[in-house]
Amino acid sequence: MRTQVAIIGGGPSGLLLSQLLNRAGIETVVLERQSRAHVLSRIRAGVLERCTVDLLNQAGAGARMQREGYPHDGCYLSSDQKMIRVDFQEACGHTVMVYGQTEVTRDLYDAQDALGATHIHGVENVVLHDLKGAAPSVTWDKDGESFRLECDFIAGCDGFHGVSRRSIPDNMRREYEKVYPFGWLGVLSETPPVRDELIYANHPRGFALASMRNPMLSRYYIQVPLSDKAEDWSDDAFWTELKARLPQDVAADLVTGASIEKSIAPLRSFVSEPLRWGALFLCGDAAHIVPPTGAKGLNLATSDVHYLSQGLLAHYNDNDPSGLDSYSQKALARIWKAMRFSWSVTTMMHRFPEHSEYDRQMQRVELDMLATDPTARKLFAENYTGTPL
Amino acid sequence: MRTQVAIIGGGPSGLLLSQLLNRAGIETVVLERQSRAHVLSRIRAGVLERCTVDLLNQAGAGARMQREGYPHDGCYLSSDQKMIRVDFQEACGHTVMVYGQTEVTRDLYDAQDALGATHIHGVENVVLHDLKGAAPSVTWDKDGESFRLECDFIAGCDGFHGVSRRSIPDNMRREYEKVYPFGWLGVLSETPPVRDELIYANHPRGFALASMRNPMLSRYYIQVPLSDKAEDWSDDAFWTELKARLPQDVAADLVTGASIEKSIAPLRSFVSEPLRWGALFLCGDAAHIVPPTGAKGLNLATSDVHYLSQGLLAHYNDNDPSGLDSYSQKALARIWKAMRFSWSVTTMMHRFPEHSEYDRQMQRVELDMLATDPTARKLFAENYTGTPL
Repeated sequence: MRTQVAIIGGGPSGLLLSQLLNRAGIETVVLERQSRAHVLSRIRAGVLERCTVDLLNQAGAGARMQREGYPHDGCYLSSDQKMIRVDFQEACGHTVMVYGQTEVTRDLYDAQDALGATHIHGVENVVLHDLKGAAPSVTWDKDGESFRLECDFIAGCDGFHGVSRRSIPDNMRREYEKVYPFGWLGVLSETPPVRDELIYANHPRGFALASMRNPMLSRYYIQVPLSDKAEDWSDDAFWTELKARLPQDVAADLVTGASIEKSIAPLRSFVSEPLRWGALFLCGDAAHIVPPTGAKGLNLATSDVHYLSQGLLAHYNDNDPSGLDSYSQKALARIWKAMRFSWSVTTMMHRFPEHSEYDRQMQRVELDMLATDPTARKLFAENYTGTPL
Repeated sequence: MRTQVAIIGGGPSGLLLSQLLNRAGIETVVLERQSRAHVLSRIRAGVLERCTVDLLNQAGAGARMQREGYPHDGCYLSSDQKMIRVDFQEACGHTVMVYGQTEVTRDLYDAQDALGATHIHGVENVVLHDLKGAAPSVTWDKDGESFRLECDFIAGCDGFHGVSRRSIPDNMRREYEKVYPFGWLGVLSETPPVRDELIYANHPRGFALASMRNPMLSRYYIQVPLSDKAEDWSDDAFWTELKARLPQDVAADLVTGASIEKSIAPLRSFVSEPLRWGALFLCGDAAHIVPPTGAKGLNLATSDVHYLSQGLLAHYNDNDPSGLDSYSQKALARIWKAMRFSWSVTTMMHRFPEHSEYDRQMQRVELDMLATDPTARKLFAENYTGTPL
């Protein structure tokens, strides 16, 4: 088998890359360990930056998002009982789109099907070969048989636990990591969201986030110790704890219901450099992880895909290597800004065991500045809605 | 003895308050433990915010500063060999004035002498009485005699180690404190400054600051462990270490010479709330300490004095208590913003023993944003040149 670009991973970044390349006449094969149904069952973030919205439209996969997504002009941040709103539109002229990552993935699969793109699910034992040589390839096993795909380039879109990043020799990679001393317990429920915009809440009992997918689907989170297990949290216990952490007037409006998904995710900031190793290019979670505060994960993956697709188009159409050569540097510049933003919002909004009263006061001042200082608000809004590509 | 406002402390905040009140016809007595010569021998910061410049002019003590001070349109920040400049004027439309605190103090003494103001130096065993009662007073000893001054109000301008803050019962005060795990070794030398604007340098060997008082008087600092002693640092060792921490092209231009002052100061962020206790009002270092990064100490003291003088004027001229009643809250709102700024610049520019590679990368990104992001630069410039009163 041979293709131009082998794409490891059939999540949103792999699919978006495949879609952008296919539409430009570049051949791809997408290899995914899981079934399509499994990929589509993953519950992930749901806030799209304007650049992500633009890219999905550009990829011909934005029609349903435009119809069914919810443009948000702002968000709320609360500290104890005080709640402030940041109006993104007013502060920086941009908005975000609330539309679940699961829906994005579904739309991309549909768009890929319409193009007749090649996806191979259920691959095992994926190995990348000859990344620094003249004949890169990918091998895998499926249903007891072994396969080889020869290609020009390999896009590693296979997430934090995938094989791609680890195919770069350890001594050629530099990792930066911060592990936060807590996780998020998330609940999805078929209940109306408590407010029409997201609420990030800093409370003495810990952080909480009230978010949503649509008018009858809510997504709530609370900060929990890493030692907690999702199965030890009853729905009742979750709702009681969430109510205690939201401002009282918000909590009074909370509609509770049975959880349809409940899980705990640890919080981590992680970057592996470089993003290119010979024929291999890493995109999204394969190279970097953000804590979910600020919803940067999917958005960073799509900006990586943008830079990489531009580089591949210049290579194939104009024989111009500059886009591929500068991919790592360009993508990392934007990644690090988002790493800083999600780290600083995480630090501002959570309760840390090691924080002093002075640190807590710094959190209050940062929030007060968002309420009172137009420049601080603009900087927050620009970073929340996404820095330009 | 009786006066309207007893002022504890004859440093710049006490003198500025006395000057503003005297010019408005309000009687003061300034009590200072040290001699005037001792007060004038203290080497302190040298960057005045625009509000401080305005207040000194308003107090009739700004003429020499206007003649001899150096308006600065920007400053430099370096990380390893990379140096960026923040143009305050361009970023936010304001500038700062380089003029030593010692000179400010001298000008205020001269202005006070011209008004015939009452200053009593060499006071010992100062005690504040009846702060919550109808007859506040101050007692002290001098030259073996005891004195009492009856007054309407007492302004505590006597610094971190003074008696004023400690005259508020411990259980009625709330303290916030962060002690940094390093100090600044400072050297004053009669040499031309290495650049015409300040340079804040973040280097693997530690922080350095190149600043100045005038074209033949330089003030340099390096971050040192708290266990270091100034007397163990020879001039040669200091210059060698400073050169190693500045960008190479800057270091090549450094003119060295004999130190005329050399000392180590610890770095601390500290706030004691409230600023008012009955008849007592705290100003400046008596209530709050900033690390010197960002030069906020004197500037915060003068903004406190501004709010307090406005409150006292409204009380005496219009029988309006609102300015005094809101003093603590108003002054603290501005203080906390400056606490955040000096804390964040300190955190961005120093090497901390506990910092990980991830933390170090966050420092680099913050600096990169000052170089590339106009909103980040504006926020920095607005806070550096001083938030409005």
